[in-house]
Amino acid sequence: MAMIVLLTDFGLTGPYTGQVKAVLALAAPGVPVIDLFADAPTFDPRATAYLLATYAGEFPADAVFVCVVDPGVGSERRPLIVRADGRWFVGPDNGVFELVIRRAPQPARAWRIDWRPERLSATFHGRDLFAPVAAALARGGEPPGQALPLDRVRRRDWPDDLPEVVYVDGYGNAMTGLRARAVPDGAALLVAGVRLARARTFADVPRGQAFFYANSSGLVEIAVHCGHAARVLKLAVGTPVELARGESRLP
Amino acid sequence: MAMIVLLTDFGLTGPYTGQVKAVLALAAPGVPVIDLFADAPTFDPRATAYLLATYAGEFPADAVFVCVVDPGVGSERRPLIVRADGRWFVGPDNGVFELVIRRAPQPARAWRIDWRPERLSATFHGRDLFAPVAAALARGGEPPGQALPLDRVRRRDWPDDLPEVVYVDGYGNAMTGLRARAVPDGAALLVAGVRLARARTFADVPRGQAFFYANSSGLVEIAVHCGHAARVLKLAVGTPVELARGESRLP
Amino acid sequence: MAMIVLLTDFGLTGPYTGQVKAVLALAAPGVPVIDLFADAPTFDPRATAYLLATYAGEFPADAVFVCVVDPGVGSERRPLIVRADGRWFVGPDNGVFELVIRRAPQPARAWRIDWRPERLSATFHGRDLFAPVAAALARGGEPPGQALPLDRVRRRDWPDDLPEVVYVDGYGNAMTGLRARAVPDGAALLVAGVRLARARTFADVPRGQAFFYANSSGLVEIAVHCGHAARVLKLAVGTPVELARGESRLP
Repeated sequence: MAMIVLLTDFGLTGPYTGQVKAVLALAAPGVPVIDLFADAPTFDPRATAYLLATYAGEFPADAVFVCVVDPGVGSERRPLIVRADGRWFVGPDNGVFELVIRRAPQPARAWRIDWRPERLSATFHGRDLFAPVAAALARGGEPPGQALPLDRVRRRDWPDDLPEVVYVDGYGNAMTGLRARAVPDGAALLVAGVRLARARTFADVPRGQAFFYANSSGLVEIAVHCGHAARVLKLAVGTPVELARGESRLP
Repeated sequence: MAMIVLLTDFGLTGPYTGQVKAVLALAAPGVPVIDLFADAPTFDPRATAYLLATYAGEFPADAVFVCVVDPGVGSERRPLIVRADGRWFVGPDNGVFELVIRRAPQPARAWRIDWRPERLSATFHGRDLFAPVAAALARGGEPPGQALPLDRVRRRDWPDDLPEVVYVDGYGNAMTGLRARAVPDGAALLVAGVRLARARTFADVPRGQAFFYANSSGLVEIAVHCGHAARVLKLAVGTPVELARGESRLP
Repeated sequence: MAMIVLLTDFGLTGPYTGQVKAVLALAAPGVPVIDLFADAPTFDPRATAYLLATYAGEFPADAVFVCVVDPGVGSERRPLIVRADGRWFVGPDNGVFELVIRRAPQPARAWRIDWRPERLSATFHGRDLFAPVAAALARGGEPPGQALPLDRVRRRDWPDDLPEVVYVDGYGNAMTGLRARAVPDGAALLVAGVRLARARTFADVPRGQAFFYANSSGLVEIAVHCGHAARVLKLAVGTPVELARGESRLP
């Protein structure tokens, strides 16, 4: 089923998401548009790349992602389309698709966006370029540009799993760039000087206790039961996380 | 008309509401999905219960509410469907439906959700369990589980009207769990040591003055004309409100 | 194409936008509803008027705008419909449409809303009055009230371009009420005691540097590359902006 998914650092306020949605409503009427993240890590394509690769897997096979974390807008960075595992990804060629490309079960494909709108602003390619292209793809169109070998895409040497906080949610839970399956059974984590054991869910630990768990999308997430982990442990995007082998059972 | 209404404490940020909406868009295509509260009182089914019972009345007779204020997710708390006054309510059996059940003009009905998805995460039943069930109900399906007598639902001895702040909005206005009709004409309120008189609307009091009024959904709400009541009076969810009989006319 | 656009100061939290959207979904099913601003300058029809006149131009010719920045709700201020440049505007007659009227290429038209719903709250005309009227207009209906000569609308003597900050976005960028074309080539700006030169886009200045530019909707906007201009320069809605002729090239 056609679906367009927005992942941006536009923030929750302001007109930007609405402007993009107006373009989509006109160019792809009736196609559902889902706000996945409007608060992806600002100016941080690396942290965003791990979020995107994690969450994309939950969406239908032909979903179209509009990914705008784009500190280089208006510079010479290339506008890009990637197809990975059936899904389409539209956005800047700044590494934000690195993990999507790397984790694709079949080799991903890429296209440079050669199409340009009549009016292209210097600072809002989300509205002017990426949204119209996403709408066209959601309606079954071909990528409006030249195919690009993957080695001509701007590739990054980022690790397969990133041992850092990549997102702090509204509860104060801190997602990391580690997939839960990358953490061996029985391993503990060291985060901000604190040793954390693994639990299955919030209700399994006492109120106020910090722990980590496999979140519902498969990422290692640091939490405090009925508390605000980021405040308690002083976590932010970029805080490093370390594996600490050894005893990790909850007391 | 079919309509799905979301009332959660997911917060405004993060992927959670988007993930739920993606499930709904696939399972109940074309059904409007309304964000009523994404910031219901966190971990607080009691305060939320008064908000839900108040706001539900404004929605169409067969609307389906997805209510996720669920500190016990992953524990043994029961997933529940309630039907009250024609509307459907889907969520955890933790008291969040207590006031909806109690205020229903005809006896409410309840069902235990016996259906389980192929993949049920430990921490995100909103996406995995409640959203698919809500979509099925919105499409006219039967509750996927066993009918439950109301005395087997987790009932609560909370009062019919809660003399506490249950929500602070973006203007700083503080909604209480009191229905306006529960406050006798001419009564004043005592809140945070301050005596407040009743007004009809903001424009009826001088700028900067605190007052209370029947808000547009029938709740007693504490406000300051062109000011931020919660900051001025130091109000938060849980702040008690007292009826003070006697002179309450505005000066 | 029919489209309803919301521009309010309801804030991001709370039930208000959802309540309005429920009314619209019932009264104008299938019509896309776009959130343009939910955080227009609170209680400030003047700053809002410049945002509305700027952003309206990006929407389709028969779009219907619901504009609720309405400190006078419940008082005697008139509910109004304006038609300007093909688009419809519904909201309070408090000046919020002043710039839309003034910039219309053909004379705008206005109507007093005479229709009243069965139940009109004292404080939420957005839900009770403006949303149903907007839905009717979006479905092709006639304005439900008496035509009003423009000189009977509440007109304001606000300037054609407002040399003040009118909005601060989530990145900390500060939009002004100045159209970029109102600033002569080569002119610098004085803002909060700092002299700012013009750039084309973020990538054209060093990280951390403050500058101004024509934003993607044509407004003068003050920004810091990869920084938070409002915090760095201490800007807020209402901060005055001054033209400083003379040398303004970026170093």
